[in-house]
Amino acid sequence: AQSSVTVFGIVDVAVRHVDGDGTTKTLLSSGGLSTGRIGFRGIEDLGGGLKAGFWLESQVNADDGTQPQARFWHRRATVSLISDSLGEVRLGRDFAPTYSAFADYDAFGDNGVAAFTAMYKPRTVSGTTPQTAVRDDNQVSYILPTTLGGIYGQASVAAGEGTKGSKYYGGRIGYKTGPFDVSAAYGQTELASSDDKYKLFVVGGSYDFGVAKILAAYQEAKYDVGVASIDGLKDKLLTVGATVPVGAFVIRASYDQVKADDDKNAKRLSLGGIYNLSKRTAFYGTYSVIDNDDAGTFVVADSPAVAAGKKSQGVEVGVRHSF
Amino acid sequence: AQSSVTVFGIVDVAVRHVDGDGTTKTLLSSGGLSTGRIGFRGIEDLGGGLKAGFWLESQVNADDGTQPQARFWHRRATVSLISDSLGEVRLGRDFAPTYSAFADYDAFGDNGVAAFTAMYKPRTVSGTTPQTAVRDDNQVSYILPTTLGGIYGQASVAAGEGTKGSKYYGGRIGYKTGPFDVSAAYGQTELASSDDKYKLFVVGGSYDFGVAKILAAYQEAKYDVGVASIDGLKDKLLTVGATVPVGAFVIRASYDQVKADDDKNAKRLSLGGIYNLSKRTAFYGTYSVIDNDDAGTFVVADSPAVAAGKKSQGVEVGVRHSF
Amino acid sequence: AQSSVTVFGIVDVAVRHVDGDGTTKTLLSSGGLSTGRIGFRGIEDLGGGLKAGFWLESQVNADDGTQPQARFWHRRATVSLISDSLGEVRLGRDFAPTYSAFADYDAFGDNGVAAFTAMYKPRTVSGTTPQTAVRDDNQVSYILPTTLGGIYGQASVAAGEGTKGSKYYGGRIGYKTGPFDVSAAYGQTELASSDDKYKLFVVGGSYDFGVAKILAAYQEAKYDVGVASIDGLKDKLLTVGATVPVGAFVIRASYDQVKADDDKNAKRLSLGGIYNLSKRTAFYGTYSVIDNDDAGTFVVADSPAVAAGKKSQGVEVGVRHSF
Repeated sequence: AQSSVTVFGIVDVAVRHVDGDGTTKTLLSSGGLSTGRIGFRGIEDLGGGLKAGFWLESQVNADDGTQPQARFWHRRATVSLISDSLGEVRLGRDFAPTYSAFADYDAFGDNGVAAFTAMYKPRTVSGTTPQTAVRDDNQVSYILPTTLGGIYGQASVAAGEGTKGSKYYGGRIGYKTGPFDVSAAYGQTELASSDDKYKLFVVGGSYDFGVAKILAAYQEAKYDVGVASIDGLKDKLLTVGATVPVGAFVIRASYDQVKADDDKNAKRLSLGGIYNLSKRTAFYGTYSVIDNDDAGTFVVADSPAVAAGKKSQGVEVGVRHSF
Repeated sequence: AQSSVTVFGIVDVAVRHVDGDGTTKTLLSSGGLSTGRIGFRGIEDLGGGLKAGFWLESQVNADDGTQPQARFWHRRATVSLISDSLGEVRLGRDFAPTYSAFADYDAFGDNGVAAFTAMYKPRTVSGTTPQTAVRDDNQVSYILPTTLGGIYGQASVAAGEGTKGSKYYGGRIGYKTGPFDVSAAYGQTELASSDDKYKLFVVGGSYDFGVAKILAAYQEAKYDVGVASIDGLKDKLLTVGATVPVGAFVIRASYDQVKADDDKNAKRLSLGGIYNLSKRTAFYGTYSVIDNDDAGTFVVADSPAVAAGKKSQGVEVGVRHSF
Repeated sequence: AQSSVTVFGIVDVAVRHVDGDGTTKTLLSSGGLSTGRIGFRGIEDLGGGLKAGFWLESQVNADDGTQPQARFWHRRATVSLISDSLGEVRLGRDFAPTYSAFADYDAFGDNGVAAFTAMYKPRTVSGTTPQTAVRDDNQVSYILPTTLGGIYGQASVAAGEGTKGSKYYGGRIGYKTGPFDVSAAYGQTELASSDDKYKLFVVGGSYDFGVAKILAAYQEAKYDVGVASIDGLKDKLLTVGATVPVGAFVIRASYDQVKADDDKNAKRLSLGGIYNLSKRTAFYGTYSVIDNDDAGTFVVADSPAVAAGKKSQGVEVGVRHSF
């Protein structure tokens, strides 16, 4: 019945201008500050410190009214049993713990022209690309309770169910106390065959000094695969950032660097500001520039593409409204 | 949270019978009186006469449980900042102002067998059909405040974003006082190239005499394009209608006429009645007949098609329920 | 407005293991106890014993966030007018009465590895498969009022609208008093041509002894078609089951048997248990084994397939949460 459901969401639309080595494009974009979404969630208290909960969340691209086609509940579809003392068992589609372990320490939260996933591109090996970079289908997770004196963590297994690149296990362990937060994660995805592994190691942390919060994260992706040209290849991604609250304003900045064994390298600088009109509504502006090195072809947005070593930059100004 | 969201919608299903020059078809239809929909919307008061708002609206075809596939939030997906004194800025997918400027004065509101868009068919030029006949993706609109003594208006720009036939700008200005309402609109859409323009001029008005409301609208679509066979071609559409309230009943009637430079012409008569069981629930019946002239092949519903100059007619009886 | 809408749903995810003649598969599944769903419904009291109502219900596969693609409101999309004394007229997509007449007496309610539809597979005749086995698009139903001293019933017609295998009429009549419930149904679907008929006759009943509820249902599908090899063919399906409440537990068991004129035969045993943590949340476990005879190739889940006469079995353990 109604009382057990919370309807929530975000509508976030911006005017974006991107420049790929001189080729420019102006467009309306969605999710510049936070990905647009609509969701339904609820928690039932079963007594004795036990709770049951559900969470269904769909992506909303308000610029054109679309949503990712294949999965309506693309962002999350889970059912949970939660014990205050023993922790949570969560079943369904959800974030992979290796993703959260990086995203939680990115100053721009993987959104808009500064999204870090623009510089985190899993490779295709024998026709299979890891499907577990952000979320996993068919995931069973155990999440530690919040009663462990600041220690938190999650262990997850995702059934492949015949979809190549989807069989995953991973975990994250962290410690958070007052202004201090640090965590590490490891995950492994099976690619075309059980001999091909995509391994991801992530470490990150943040410290909130009050006048500014400093964030940093590092991840290393390694391909242990049967294809000689890719076997052993490593992609390294680093982000260092800060958020500075000034009254209703928040200033954000980050520096990212990607280094790959095959010279697909790049550096990136992102700068942005948020003006909170209320807790639910904010204006924002973000600028990001990717300076590709060597064989790097990273771009701030899907299009326009750039040739190896060329620059891609973008700016957007928008409004985010939560409900 | 819940309190900031309004869930609303319409489920409207009818039994429809159509006759295309003797070929008949009986079916269940959706949206005979109002297009079926479900939506989520909310307004946040930011203080100082400023508000933020969102609107997500999906089409519901309750006859078969479908919705338009490509865009779940096909009907509207917008975020707004609204100043009581300065007006509204609205971003996202929304009606084109040129569409509203005609639809607001159609006695049948573009629904069911009497829908005016059955007689408003933008042409395909060099493979591109205007995508802006009803709604625009990626639209930025400025809407005048309601404090201008009856003057209202909207100016809109839609980014093309590489989809041909989608780059649009348009505006509407109107005056409404007591029973009187009149407006005019102009819009221009870029087709396959920036040399190909689809131009739409619309004017309409209504007067509510109490015993009856009289409505009329006229639109002229002009193709300024590089293709010689279509360049300069005009499609003219006129509607004249009335709605007559009689207790819980409303009688509706309209006469439409379309005249094109290439003789794709037609006349149409529509008659209907609504019986309001409550503010939220109504029975209705509608009859419409299109009498094609010369090269005209307009039909009251997608199927059955008719040969040039032949008659198409349809009748439907249904129930509309709002929530 | 908000107050007129009830948001409801089920998220149900299980860990499933299936074995098709030795080929095994472990996966996360959705809907093991009840099909996952989210819906919006409401009833308006029009006064004088008359009500209007709507019901929109979408399937939710929480294991991977998907929903059936073609129809978002796949489970139900209807508008109703309901008279306390005269009954209900319901328009839209809904269950076929012949389906409910079997499903209501299945101990496992057509869900998970024990779902009876795994043994009810309508045949394809001249390229057309009946689309009416579970639900009908474009259905008009009349449902008897609840004031007839235990007699209940429904008559339904579904317009084909050019989709082969969709034109249907059917009805169900039943009697329910105290612990006793019995009903019979008949339905007929037009296949590729109006000469090809798929006829379904169903009878079922249940008796609740308190310590146990006994259920049984039988259906006979007959093909009266122009294709000689299938003409006159009959598929017979029988289920006998029981549900036994033991405190917060419910034990379930059923035996199914399918017999076809072309020897596509099978027997099946299903066993399961439910533990209700609350009215809204339950753990469950289900085991089912299909023993194919002769040409039978039935399987407990879509995959793995089995050769004729081979065994298919599956087990799942999950959690269902309603909201």
